[in-house]
Amino acid sequence: MDLRYIGLSIGHSFEAHNHRDEGVYEFHLVLEGQGVFYNGEQEYPLESGTLFFSIPEESHAATSTIPMVLYYCNFWLYPEDQNLKHALRDYFLGHAAIKVGRTTNLVFEEIRRKHQSRDSWLRHSAEYQLLAYLYELLSGEQQNTSHQGQIYINEALNYMQSQIRKDFSMEDLVQRLGIDKSYFIRLFKKTMGTSPLRYYLNLKMDAAKDSLRNSEKPVRLIARELGYEDEFYFSRIFKTYEGISPLPYRKLHLEPEISAASSAEALSIASDLG
Amino acid sequence: MDLRYIGLSIGHSFEAHNHRDEGVYEFHLVLEGQGVFYNGEQEYPLESGTLFFSIPEESHAATSTIPMVLYYCNFWLYPEDQNLKHALRDYFLGHAAIKVGRTTNLVFEEIRRKHQSRDSWLRHSAEYQLLAYLYELLSGEQQNTSHQGQIYINEALNYMQSQIRKDFSMEDLVQRLGIDKSYFIRLFKKTMGTSPLRYYLNLKMDAAKDSLRNSEKPVRLIARELGYEDEFYFSRIFKTYEGISPLPYRKLHLEPEISAASSAEALSIASDLG
Repeated sequence: MDLRYIGLSIGHSFEAHNHRDEGVYEFHLVLEGQGVFYNGEQEYPLESGTLFFSIPEESHAATSTIPMVLYYCNFWLYPEDQNLKHALRDYFLGHAAIKVGRTTNLVFEEIRRKHQSRDSWLRHSAEYQLLAYLYELLSGEQQNTSHQGQIYINEALNYMQSQIRKDFSMEDLVQRLGIDKSYFIRLFKKTMGTSPLRYYLNLKMDAAKDSLRNSEKPVRLIARELGYEDEFYFSRIFKTYEGISPLPYRKLHLEPEISAASSAEALSIASDLG
Repeated sequence: MDLRYIGLSIGHSFEAHNHRDEGVYEFHLVLEGQGVFYNGEQEYPLESGTLFFSIPEESHAATSTIPMVLYYCNFWLYPEDQNLKHALRDYFLGHAAIKVGRTTNLVFEEIRRKHQSRDSWLRHSAEYQLLAYLYELLSGEQQNTSHQGQIYINEALNYMQSQIRKDFSMEDLVQRLGIDKSYFIRLFKKTMGTSPLRYYLNLKMDAAKDSLRNSEKPVRLIARELGYEDEFYFSRIFKTYEGISPLPYRKLHLEPEISAASSAEALSIASDLG
C-alpha cells in the first residue's frame, strides 16, 4: 500500500472519476452532511457516520444540502496487494456505504497526524494502521460503541488483566465502573462478542496454555499462579474450555524453542545431525 | 511478519534462548513484577510499564520477587522485512528496555483478541496493528498519556473536527471538558507535540489545501467554507502557514486525477495520444 492522502475535506458537492487508474482506492467518511452519494450505478443517502468506499472502476459523486465535512482518503494498492484488492472488490462492489463506529474519526485523525509527520517511521505506522483498519472492516466486526462505552470496556479489560492471578468478581467490577450490571453485560457482549466472564476465562486459559507450552512447571503450580487453590478444579475447567486436560495439552504443544537451556541445546544437536 | 503468539504470561521467572533462529523476535510487557530482566549481556530493573524487546541473537531471562504478569509476544520476520529488521536491531541492540504508555496493554489486548479470532481478516488486522505499533515505537513517539488524559485529547479532537467550518474557542473547549485551561494546554502539547491552536490550524489548512488541489472553487468560497468571512485574512493566514499564497499553491499542486469530469476526460484523451 501507498497511502497518498488522508485529511478533512469540505464543501457542498464533489465529483470524481476513478476509471483511469487501476490502483487507486478512495473512501469518504461523512462527519457532517445531508444529501446523496452516487457510486458507480448506485445512489445512497449521505449522512453523518457513513463511510463510502470507492474501488478503482467506480466513479463517484456527492451532493449535500448542508456543508459537508468528510475525511477523505486515497491510497494506492500494488499488484502484490492482490488479496486485499480482491477482498475490497468483493466487499464493496455494488454496496459502497457502511455505517461505522463513532470512534472511527479518531482512528482516521491519528492516521492523518502520523501520515503528515516528517518522521518516516510514523508515516509507515500510518499505512499499517490503515491496513489494520481495512482488514477489520472486511471482517465485518462493527465497533459501534460510543466513546463512553469504550471507556467502560477499557476499564473492564484493565480490571481483568489485574485480576488474572486472582478471581473475577462482576459485582466488584461494576461497582468500580459505577454502572448498572445488566447494562454493562449487554454493552460488553455487544462490543466484544462474548460475555465478560467468558472473556476473562479466555484470558486466564490463554495464560495457562502459555505456561503449559513454555515451561516445565507442574500443573499444581500453574493452577496456583492463576488463583486456583484446587488443582483438580483448575484441570476440570481447563478441560471444559479446551476439550483436553492440561498434561495431554502440554505433550501435544510443547514448544522446544522457548523451553529451558537443556532442550534448546538438545535441539541444536538435533539440527546439527539433520 | 508472521505473528506467532501474543498473550498474558505468568510466573516468577523465565529463561529463553533465542540463538537458534534468526527470524524470531520477542517482547515482554511487564504488567506486574519486581526484579531483574537479563537481555544479552545486560541487566535491567524489571517493573510495571516496561517493555523488553529481544532481537534474535539475544538470549534473555527474568526473575521477580513477586509473581509476574506479562504480555508476551513472539513474531517472525521474513527476509523481505529487511528494513524493519535493521531498524529493530539498531534501536534495541544493547538497550532492550523502554518505558511505554499506560494504554499499551489495551493495544496488546486488542491485538491478542484479533489474533485469536477464527476470522482470517481479523488475524491479518492483528499483524498490521502490531506493525503499526512497532513503527510508532521506532519513531520514538511516546504515548505516555494516562487513560483520562487520552479521553480529554479525544474529546478535544472531536471538538476541533466539529468546528472545522467555524472557529476554535479555547474557552468553549475547556468549559466542555470541565478542566483547567493551562492544564489542558500542557497535556495537549505533551501528547500531541504541538499546541491545540496550532493543531486546529493544521486541520483547517489541510482542508483548505485539499479544496485548492481537488476543486475549482474560488478562494473566496474556500475561505467562507472554512469560517473565514474575509478572503484576504484567510489568504494571509494560509501564506504564513504554508509559505505560499492559495492561488500559486493551487497551480503547483492541481491534481488532475480528482478534478471535474472535463479535466478527467482531457486526461484520458491525453493518455490515448501518449
